[in-house]
Amino acid sequence: MTASKYHLSPDRFFDPNPAQLKVAMALYLTIADSPLVCPHGHVDPRLFADPDYTFGSPVELLIIPDHYIFRMLYAQGIPLEKLGVPRVDGGESETDHRLIWQLFAENFYLFRGTPTGSWLTEELQSVFGIDEKLTGENAQIIYEQINRKLKSPEFRPRALFEQFDIEVLCTTNTATDTLKHHQAIRDSDWNGRILPTFRPDAIVNIDTVGWRDEIDKLSDVSGIDVVSYTALIEAMENRRSFFKKMGAKATDQAALTAYTNRLSDAEADVIFQRALKGTATPQDAAQFTGHILMEMARMSIEDGLVMQLHIGSYRNHNAVIFDRFGLDKGADIPIATDFTRAIRPLLNAYGNHPGFSLILFNLDETTYARELAPLAGHYPAVKLGPPWWFHDSLNGIRHYFDQVMETAGLYNTTGFNDDTRAYLSIPARHDVWRRASADWVAGLMVRGIVDEEDAYEMTRALGYDLAKRAYNL
Amino acid sequence: MTASKYHLSPDRFFDPNPAQLKVAMALYLTIADSPLVCPHGHVDPRLFADPDYTFGSPVELLIIPDHYIFRMLYAQGIPLEKLGVPRVDGGESETDHRLIWQLFAENFYLFRGTPTGSWLTEELQSVFGIDEKLTGENAQIIYEQINRKLKSPEFRPRALFEQFDIEVLCTTNTATDTLKHHQAIRDSDWNGRILPTFRPDAIVNIDTVGWRDEIDKLSDVSGIDVVSYTALIEAMENRRSFFKKMGAKATDQAALTAYTNRLSDAEADVIFQRALKGTATPQDAAQFTGHILMEMARMSIEDGLVMQLHIGSYRNHNAVIFDRFGLDKGADIPIATDFTRAIRPLLNAYGNHPGFSLILFNLDETTYARELAPLAGHYPAVKLGPPWWFHDSLNGIRHYFDQVMETAGLYNTTGFNDDTRAYLSIPARHDVWRRASADWVAGLMVRGIVDEEDAYEMTRALGYDLAKRAYNL
Amino acid sequence: MTASKYHLSPDRFFDPNPAQLKVAMALYLTIADSPLVCPHGHVDPRLFADPDYTFGSPVELLIIPDHYIFRMLYAQGIPLEKLGVPRVDGGESETDHRLIWQLFAENFYLFRGTPTGSWLTEELQSVFGIDEKLTGENAQIIYEQINRKLKSPEFRPRALFEQFDIEVLCTTNTATDTLKHHQAIRDSDWNGRILPTFRPDAIVNIDTVGWRDEIDKLSDVSGIDVVSYTALIEAMENRRSFFKKMGAKATDQAALTAYTNRLSDAEADVIFQRALKGTATPQDAAQFTGHILMEMARMSIEDGLVMQLHIGSYRNHNAVIFDRFGLDKGADIPIATDFTRAIRPLLNAYGNHPGFSLILFNLDETTYARELAPLAGHYPAVKLGPPWWFHDSLNGIRHYFDQVMETAGLYNTTGFNDDTRAYLSIPARHDVWRRASADWVAGLMVRGIVDEEDAYEMTRALGYDLAKRAYNL
Repeated sequence: MTASKYHLSPDRFFDPNPAQLKVAMALYLTIADSPLVCPHGHVDPRLFADPDYTFGSPVELLIIPDHYIFRMLYAQGIPLEKLGVPRVDGGESETDHRLIWQLFAENFYLFRGTPTGSWLTEELQSVFGIDEKLTGENAQIIYEQINRKLKSPEFRPRALFEQFDIEVLCTTNTATDTLKHHQAIRDSDWNGRILPTFRPDAIVNIDTVGWRDEIDKLSDVSGIDVVSYTALIEAMENRRSFFKKMGAKATDQAALTAYTNRLSDAEADVIFQRALKGTATPQDAAQFTGHILMEMARMSIEDGLVMQLHIGSYRNHNAVIFDRFGLDKGADIPIATDFTRAIRPLLNAYGNHPGFSLILFNLDETTYARELAPLAGHYPAVKLGPPWWFHDSLNGIRHYFDQVMETAGLYNTTGFNDDTRAYLSIPARHDVWRRASADWVAGLMVRGIVDEEDAYEMTRALGYDLAKRAYNL
Repeated sequence: MTASKYHLSPDRFFDPNPAQLKVAMALYLTIADSPLVCPHGHVDPRLFADPDYTFGSPVELLIIPDHYIFRMLYAQGIPLEKLGVPRVDGGESETDHRLIWQLFAENFYLFRGTPTGSWLTEELQSVFGIDEKLTGENAQIIYEQINRKLKSPEFRPRALFEQFDIEVLCTTNTATDTLKHHQAIRDSDWNGRILPTFRPDAIVNIDTVGWRDEIDKLSDVSGIDVVSYTALIEAMENRRSFFKKMGAKATDQAALTAYTNRLSDAEADVIFQRALKGTATPQDAAQFTGHILMEMARMSIEDGLVMQLHIGSYRNHNAVIFDRFGLDKGADIPIATDFTRAIRPLLNAYGNHPGFSLILFNLDETTYARELAPLAGHYPAVKLGPPWWFHDSLNGIRHYFDQVMETAGLYNTTGFNDDTRAYLSIPARHDVWRRASADWVAGLMVRGIVDEEDAYEMTRALGYDLAKRAYNL
Repeated sequence: MTASKYHLSPDRFFDPNPAQLKVAMALYLTIADSPLVCPHGHVDPRLFADPDYTFGSPVELLIIPDHYIFRMLYAQGIPLEKLGVPRVDGGESETDHRLIWQLFAENFYLFRGTPTGSWLTEELQSVFGIDEKLTGENAQIIYEQINRKLKSPEFRPRALFEQFDIEVLCTTNTATDTLKHHQAIRDSDWNGRILPTFRPDAIVNIDTVGWRDEIDKLSDVSGIDVVSYTALIEAMENRRSFFKKMGAKATDQAALTAYTNRLSDAEADVIFQRALKGTATPQDAAQFTGHILMEMARMSIEDGLVMQLHIGSYRNHNAVIFDRFGLDKGADIPIATDFTRAIRPLLNAYGNHPGFSLILFNLDETTYARELAPLAGHYPAVKLGPPWWFHDSLNGIRHYFDQVMETAGLYNTTGFNDDTRAYLSIPARHDVWRRASADWVAGLMVRGIVDEEDAYEMTRALGYDLAKRAYNL
């Protein structure tokens, strides 16, 4: 039995109505080959610092680091050890990558109808030239095909950067990062545009394991002895300034809720001192985060960095998995979120400032129409980021257009970002967005809501302009 | 460069599937020209009291009073002063209406794909005969065209009332309103049907600025010295009776949450006395509102007025804008809402009464399928109002049909109301509803869920019958 | 005037786009006639224990026991007494079934566009051969037609079981049920597969009326004197073991919220003793339920029964109706639900266990994409049940596919169950699911998301395989 060829349909993801499909395709073609603007993501800058960087095996590239993939296999009872995911305690994990790949291939049917399945199918075909559907039978042949390509010069990250036609790619970096990889890129003769993003989570989340060590690191890199709340703020300003010099356009922060509330410096320091002594309560941590968000907004107004805020992920929900495998193992679960009341203090203090830009991301789709679109459609500072994480999918994007655009207006949104660690999936992800964008605009046009001139401009804005403008790129 | 002509498509807003579109159009045509029933809205009765009332400039008509419009420009950083919105402190605001119109026209692209954009496009074309898309280039010509029409006798509000074929239009009036404009209409020889609606918010929201003055006004107009809770109730009954004599069919009330709870008269008076002294707490205000809702239901059973309830808008979210420009400046943001537990006391006390009709409106679409439809599909008193405010749009209406109708049943809903201050947008708003209704019913018919006979009756119910029946018009 | 013939369209419920419709029909035909797997429902096993069981009148079969139907008439002001619903106090209720049927028929238009309307239309046509739309005019003729059929041998429940091609049907039984009807079926020569399901609600919900009596019953049937918490657990284990011997594959439990929390045995017993004395608080009841859920999970791991959990129905919302007519009278209203935090203790304790299967059901659709799909797409134990109750409808199923599948993956869901008391509606309900499934998969295929091979396998999984596998049938 031969494995079925998988042909990517040229009009995939479009509404099948012939009238709409024709318009969608015409709109899509105007944006399909535009350069990729990647203002937010998690690609490792090391890939570009070393001109000869090579990816490891197909499994090192595609399975072990991708929690989208292994969570689905884990959900069906396959232990993470069998997929090569390393244990925190150094316990045994499968090391035979061909065996891991075989297991993955045999279970690839689990991804039917999922975005992960679509991205991987497109990546295999467009990037690796593999047009057979992955099965247990062809697993080893396909492994070999990928493996061979990965060793070729065309698969160096810098070469792919050109091939993918990436105009700019922003990485996400902890506040204490020395940005040595970014420096190496700047020092090299390669002129790919790789910019850092300032992420303070590790130094401001006083309730996370390892926070104390991060504060020490912060003292080291900033040259400021972070023994007080005011020293912390000073060190943060110092690091932001350094990031900005290194090309950063934005900051990013994640918080469980959108709670914001200004403390006095004295109140903030009382909490900070408790944290240094290891006696801070969860309540303290929530108060401190709510206050730091206010300060991050203030600093953004002062230094002009765009402020990104990701709300609503309950991290490390599965304690068993966290203890055994650590962070980011597919066990972060969204919660219901309130913005209207929670973020009001921040918006009342800074939301009317003409120089401030706050891009909001959320995992609770019910807030799109109810809270986020009305906020973005009123406050000059507020813009909405594209659908995030679980919602960065064909349906997720459709829900977003459906629930955000009427009230927020297109121009209070920020186009697309791929938010990915998986460098090779970047073109596939942007392509889904561009197709879904063209399809949405085509739907408006065939319903007589926008005319052709508007339709072309809206498609271009979604696929290219808005992201550049929102991040001052 | 000539501005593009904007032709309203005769089959706009319908699903583009040819089979469905054909049915939708046939259904729509049976209701497209029916008289407009407007049971709830905010048009100023003054427009009809004076037979020679004229609208001011295009900007006075279309921009300055319309927070849908200026909020979108404000969200892009355009100060409200530049749009002529008057400041509370009498500070400077732009007075050159041609300049304001120019600024609006240059930014009209911001409304692409929004309901405001659709309504305005239709209004300009159908009411003013302007078939060019508004741009910075043609702004002044179009201003002149509108301005000229506005001065003509055909644009007197009474003339437009006939032209729009409005069968009845209900206004919304504070409890202390003398209804002198309604009286003037009744005293005139014009027989347009303009009915008042009793809205007690200003006299029962004890935590709002100016409440004390409203109580004094209430004492004046009712002739009852409102010095106690029982006097307040007596005065409310007095005013409801007056409104009813003046033709009112309904009351309306807005509350942040659907919390209801009966207090004893003594408890209610303790809070009322604190409020008179200015020492009531926010908790007091919430308790008092929860109790007044119970009393409003009781009174509705006694006097037969339909009870409308609008839940879930966090008013004046932006303190800076509220302080500078006052109420209703596009800064009201919805919140997540619970009905199931909150409104249970009211429904347990009055929801089974055959003579009681309670029409619910909400801004949290998640309550449609989860709470509102099951409540409307059980309690004899409960009916669902059409989608409100941000959701009074093509998508909002689609969500409503999609999430309400299966469980509530069509006949526990109340058709459409335009809920608008913008008198000239009324035909456009009803047309969107009628088209969306026909499209929804057509979708059921082509899927074999209802037959042709049912489809025609459902379309007629949605476009005309239900609203008349729900409000006893 | 003759009543209109109602022809069930062979392609009903499919998207009308010709390309999608063609694929949907082809997929549907592969599953349309497969045997029905009914792993969860509320059909009375008495129907099958007596080979000569006959249904009563059309009204006894279709109106009086069906709260889907009489709630809609009640919502329009028709007293339940007029529909023959018996009063708790023995007060008068209509006994003339022809009169009740007439009233129902005259109001059948209320069900336009509702799932109840669709099921009943299909049931009348496919099961009873009635192809006229029910109206006040033909009510008595149709009553007679149904009545005659109901008396025929072809309408014995066992005969219909064969005719419907039911492969297995699971009933739901209280923990104290002696399962005598199941025993009678096993003792008979009929080999229809009717399995019990263990439902402990009545013995563990310490705040419900009659709980004390249920504990006495439990002592009787288990032979264990249930005077303490540990005795309760022992008795539950005893009953589960008995149910398992009688063929049970699963348990089921309903709770208002998904709150879980392990108590110590001593803490649990303190609450249990208060409950025996009638002094337990609502807080006690919530804590006890949260603890019992932990124990039910533990027992499932030990005895292998699948654990079903139904969350989010606020039962008996209308106290007037509850006092007059009792339970299950169409007045259960959903509430907003949190799973992420509430069910974490249970999942952290048992969710990684390879032998544990927990099927979740919920009435708050917003949890699909936000919480349930991410949980099912990670924890090996968690599977999602199909849309429940109000959402067991064409739109409800579409929402489910739209919001669950991308993140959860098809194979972490459990196919369909009809969850019905209405035995004769079973084929209609499964048919809606199978059509909606085929339509959803067809939508993926015409959008190029899955290929034909995948599409056929997915349709089969949805329509047959997943339910069998999830319940070990």
